[in-house]
Amino acid sequence: MTVKISVRLLFELSEPTDTMLQFEAAAIPEQQILSTETRLGKVEHCARVPAQDDIGERLMLRLTGKQAVDYDAIVKVDRELPELTTLAALKPHELPGEAIQYLLDSRYCLADKFRSFVDTEFGQFEGGAQIAAMRDWIEEHFTYAPGSSTGETTALDTFIERRGVCRDYAHVMVTLARAAGIPARYCSVYAPGVEPPDFHAVAEVFLADADGGGGTWQLVDATGMADSHETVKIGVGRDAADVSFMTTFGMADLTYQTVSVTT
Amino acid sequence: MTVKISVRLLFELSEPTDTMLQFEAAAIPEQQILSTETRLGKVEHCARVPAQDDIGERLMLRLTGKQAVDYDAIVKVDRELPELTTLAALKPHELPGEAIQYLLDSRYCLADKFRSFVDTEFGQFEGGAQIAAMRDWIEEHFTYAPGSSTGETTALDTFIERRGVCRDYAHVMVTLARAAGIPARYCSVYAPGVEPPDFHAVAEVFLADADGGGGTWQLVDATGMADSHETVKIGVGRDAADVSFMTTFGMADLTYQTVSVTT
Amino acid sequence: MTVKISVRLLFELSEPTDTMLQFEAAAIPEQQILSTETRLGKVEHCARVPAQDDIGERLMLRLTGKQAVDYDAIVKVDRELPELTTLAALKPHELPGEAIQYLLDSRYCLADKFRSFVDTEFGQFEGGAQIAAMRDWIEEHFTYAPGSSTGETTALDTFIERRGVCRDYAHVMVTLARAAGIPARYCSVYAPGVEPPDFHAVAEVFLADADGGGGTWQLVDATGMADSHETVKIGVGRDAADVSFMTTFGMADLTYQTVSVTT
Amino acid sequence: MTVKISVRLLFELSEPTDTMLQFEAAAIPEQQILSTETRLGKVEHCARVPAQDDIGERLMLRLTGKQAVDYDAIVKVDRELPELTTLAALKPHELPGEAIQYLLDSRYCLADKFRSFVDTEFGQFEGGAQIAAMRDWIEEHFTYAPGSSTGETTALDTFIERRGVCRDYAHVMVTLARAAGIPARYCSVYAPGVEPPDFHAVAEVFLADADGGGGTWQLVDATGMADSHETVKIGVGRDAADVSFMTTFGMADLTYQTVSVTT
Repeated sequence: MTVKISVRLLFELSEPTDTMLQFEAAAIPEQQILSTETRLGKVEHCARVPAQDDIGERLMLRLTGKQAVDYDAIVKVDRELPELTTLAALKPHELPGEAIQYLLDSRYCLADKFRSFVDTEFGQFEGGAQIAAMRDWIEEHFTYAPGSSTGETTALDTFIERRGVCRDYAHVMVTLARAAGIPARYCSVYAPGVEPPDFHAVAEVFLADADGGGGTWQLVDATGMADSHETVKIGVGRDAADVSFMTTFGMADLTYQTVSVTT
Repeated sequence: MTVKISVRLLFELSEPTDTMLQFEAAAIPEQQILSTETRLGKVEHCARVPAQDDIGERLMLRLTGKQAVDYDAIVKVDRELPELTTLAALKPHELPGEAIQYLLDSRYCLADKFRSFVDTEFGQFEGGAQIAAMRDWIEEHFTYAPGSSTGETTALDTFIERRGVCRDYAHVMVTLARAAGIPARYCSVYAPGVEPPDFHAVAEVFLADADGGGGTWQLVDATGMADSHETVKIGVGRDAADVSFMTTFGMADLTYQTVSVTT
Repeated sequence: MTVKISVRLLFELSEPTDTMLQFEAAAIPEQQILSTETRLGKVEHCARVPAQDDIGERLMLRLTGKQAVDYDAIVKVDRELPELTTLAALKPHELPGEAIQYLLDSRYCLADKFRSFVDTEFGQFEGGAQIAAMRDWIEEHFTYAPGSSTGETTALDTFIERRGVCRDYAHVMVTLARAAGIPARYCSVYAPGVEPPDFHAVAEVFLADADGGGGTWQLVDATGMADSHETVKIGVGRDAADVSFMTTFGMADLTYQTVSVTT
Repeated sequence: MTVKISVRLLFELSEPTDTMLQFEAAAIPEQQILSTETRLGKVEHCARVPAQDDIGERLMLRLTGKQAVDYDAIVKVDRELPELTTLAALKPHELPGEAIQYLLDSRYCLADKFRSFVDTEFGQFEGGAQIAAMRDWIEEHFTYAPGSSTGETTALDTFIERRGVCRDYAHVMVTLARAAGIPARYCSVYAPGVEPPDFHAVAEVFLADADGGGGTWQLVDATGMADSHETVKIGVGRDAADVSFMTTFGMADLTYQTVSVTT
C-alpha cells in the first residue's frame, strides 16, 4: 500500500531554543520511502540522530523566530500482519533484553496499578487474544473526544474519564498490555482515515511469532481508525513523552499545523 | 580501589512467578570483576539478558516458594573522575542519539515542571558547576530519612516533602538536571559508607569531556554518602522503575535482605 | 439495637504536640448514649468542640510522652431505615444549603472525573436504586485487602487498583454518588461484624424522604460488613481527611490499638 | 471604601442542566450592599441557599440553551484591618469548632506534605508574622501568568512550577498556612486593581484578635494586587472547588465573561 504524506508546521520561538523534531517516516524494512522532502527554515544548528530502538530519526535543532517546517513523502508499506488472536505471549524469561524496558512503568503508563483489573477483566485470555480483548474493551468503553485531554493526561486519568484522543487510547492500551506482562510501546504514526486528520498514535505489543521462532512487534489501534496495512511508523518510545513530534527545551508557540495522509 | 560485596536475599512466592533480578556488579571498562559468585535456588526457567544501555545484566527467572539469593563479588574500580565543576554542558544538538532519552520525562522524574524553578535557582550556573550547585542544594535542603518514602514516591513528592532515601535523592537530582537540559540517568550501585548498609542509588549526568571530544557520564550523589572512586555500578535506567534489584510480575514477599560493601 | 464499644489506644509523642481525636459515639437523635467513659492521661490542654455538621465532638489536646486513651460506651441505635431502592434523588436546586458541599470534590474524592463512567455504567438508574447499583458494583469488583492502601490513597487509586479497606470503599462510594449529582459524605462509625475488628467507615448519601418532605442521609456500606441497624456514628466529613480518629499536628507514633464492638 | 461591580456572563448549555452560581457580593457586617441587581434569563428552577460558613449565597438553577447573567452592585466596604504581623496564632485547642475544618487537607490544598518545608523555611516566625513571611515568599518566587494553570492544578503543582493565577497563589498561601497549623480558607472576591480585570481570589487566615479575645479571619493576597480595604467578599470555602463562580452538573460552554470592579 502506498501512502502519501504532507505536513506543514508553523511555530514561533521568542529566543534561540533547542528543539527536537520527529515527524519523518522511519526508514525500516517494512516501509520503503519512495520519495521524501523535508524543508526547514533558517536554523542555527542541526543534527540528525537515530531515534529510540533505531526506528526513525530525531532532528535536533537550535532555532529562533518564526519557523516553517514542510514535509512531503511517499511511503510504500509492506507489512506482514498475522491474525492477532493467533499469536502467543512470550514469558518474561523468553524476551530479548531490549524488549524488557517495555514491561516497566513510564511517565504516562503506570501499568503496575492495573494488574488486578487486568487479571479480573482479561484473565481468561492469553497473548494476542488478550490484547484483542483489551483493544475491544477500550473501543467499547471510551469516547474519542478531541480537546478532552492535555499533555498532563496519563493512562490512569483516561481510564477514569473514559475519553481522549489517539494518544490517550494508545497509553491505555500500552498500560493494560504491560499490566498483563506483555511488552508494549507507543508508536507515533501516519495513517489515512484518521478523523480529524492529524498525527496519529497507536500501541505496539511484542508477541511470539506464529512459527515460534522469537517475537515481533504488532500494531494495535484501540481507536479503530488506522488500518495497519497502510500505517506509516514515525518512531517508538515508552509513551508519548518519547516521540512527541516537537519537543522544545524552552517556550514555543505552535501557530499552525496541517497533516494530510492519503492513499 | 577494590570493593568487596556480599548480598543475601530471602523471598517467597506463593505461586510460579516471573521475576527479574538485577543486583550484580556490571562488567564495564571502569570496573574489573575480580571474582563473582551468584547462587540461586531452584528455578523453573532462567535467562540472562543485557540490561539498559548494555550496562550489567538482568536475570529473568520463573520460580516459586521460598527462595534464597546469595551474591559475592570483588570488584576493582578504576574510574577517571574529572573535577565536576570544570565540565561543560553539551547542547541538545550536540548529544549522541542514545543520550536523548535521558532528557525526557519518566515515571518518577517529571522534569518539565521544574524548568522555572531550575532557571531561577540555578540559572547563573552552567554545566558541571550547575550540577554541583543542584547537588549541594539538595544535600542542604533535604533530610535523609529511611522509611519516609514508598515505591510510589516521585521526585515531585520528595521535592515537596524534603526528605527521602537514596532513591529519592537520585530522582530529584535526575529531575533537576533534565530540567536544565542535561541528560541524567538513575544508577543503581554498591558503595561502601552507605548508612544503613543497603543497595544504593545515585544520579549520572552526561557532560562534555574536559578535552572537548564528546561526552561522558559522571556520577553525582546528592546524599553525599558515596565516594565515586569506590562506587560499583549495577545498572542504569531512566529512574528506579528501570533498575529495581527485584521486579516481580506477581506477588512476592521479601523476607530478608542484607547488603555488605567494604573496601 | 444496643451496641457495646471498647477502644484502647496507646501512642507516643516525643514533644508537646497538638492532637485532635474523634472517636466517641455521637450524641444524635438516632443513637442514645446509655453509658460512656473516656479516660485520657495527662494533657497540657484539652478542649471539646462540635465536629462537622454538629455530629459528634472533637477533642483538641496538647500532650506529650506516652499516652493511653480508653473509651467504653453502650449505645442504643434506633434508626429508621427505609428501603434504599425506593428513595428518589433530589435535584441540586432542591437541596438544602448545607448538603451542597457534599456534591463537590474533596481531598480523596475527585468526583468530577467520574461523570462519564457513572453516566455509562449507572445511567439507567436513579436515586436510591442508582446508589444501590453502585454499592453492588463496588462490592463485586473490589477485594477487601487490609494493608493494601495508605493515607495517600485516593478514590481514584482505589478505583484503578480494585482493592482497599473500608476507608477506600467509602471513598469510592462517595465519589461515584457525587459524580451522579447525589450529595455524599464520609461517615466514621463503629459496627459489629467488622473483620478484623477496627474503626469502620461507610458512606452516607442524601436522598429524598419517602414522603417527599425533604431529604435525609442514608448509610451505605459498600464493604457489606456493617448492618445499618447497629452502626454507631462517630462523625462525618467530606472524606477521611475530616474524620480521622487521630490527627496530630506533629509526629506521633501509634503503638497499640484495639477496638471491640459487640451487640 | 465604595466599590462598583459589574459582571456579564454568557454561557450555553445544550440540555437542561443543574448549575450553581456564586458571584454576588456577600451581605456580611463588614460590607454593606448599597445597591444590587441580578438578572438571569429564563430558568426552569431557581433556588437561593446560604453558602459555606453563611457567607454569601449560592444560586441553584436548572436551565438550558443560551444564557446571560448580568450583575451590578455597589458595595461599601468597612473592614477593620489590624497590622498582620502583630497578630498571634491560636493553638489548635484554642480554635472554635468551625475553624478546624480549615486546618485539614482539601482537594487542591494538601498541606500535610508541606510541614517540613514550612518548618524549615518559616519556622523562625509565628502567627501573623509567619503568614506575612509566607505571603512575601510566594510573591517573590512566583510569576503571575494567566493561562498557565487549569482546573486540575493543585497547590503542589503551583509550588513546583512557580507560576499561576490568583487561584493558584491563594491555594499555595492556604496550603502553607495550614501546614503551619493556622486555619486558612479560600476567599472568592472582587477587587479593584486586578489586572487583567477578573474574578479574584485570596486567602483568609484565622488569627488571634489583637485584644486576645478570640480569633478573626484576615485577608491575605499573595499576588499583591488586592487592597483589603476595598476587597469585596463573594464567598469562602476550603479551596476553589467550593467557591467557583459557576459549577455545572453537566456540560456548559462559557462564551463570554466580563468583570469590572472600580472605586
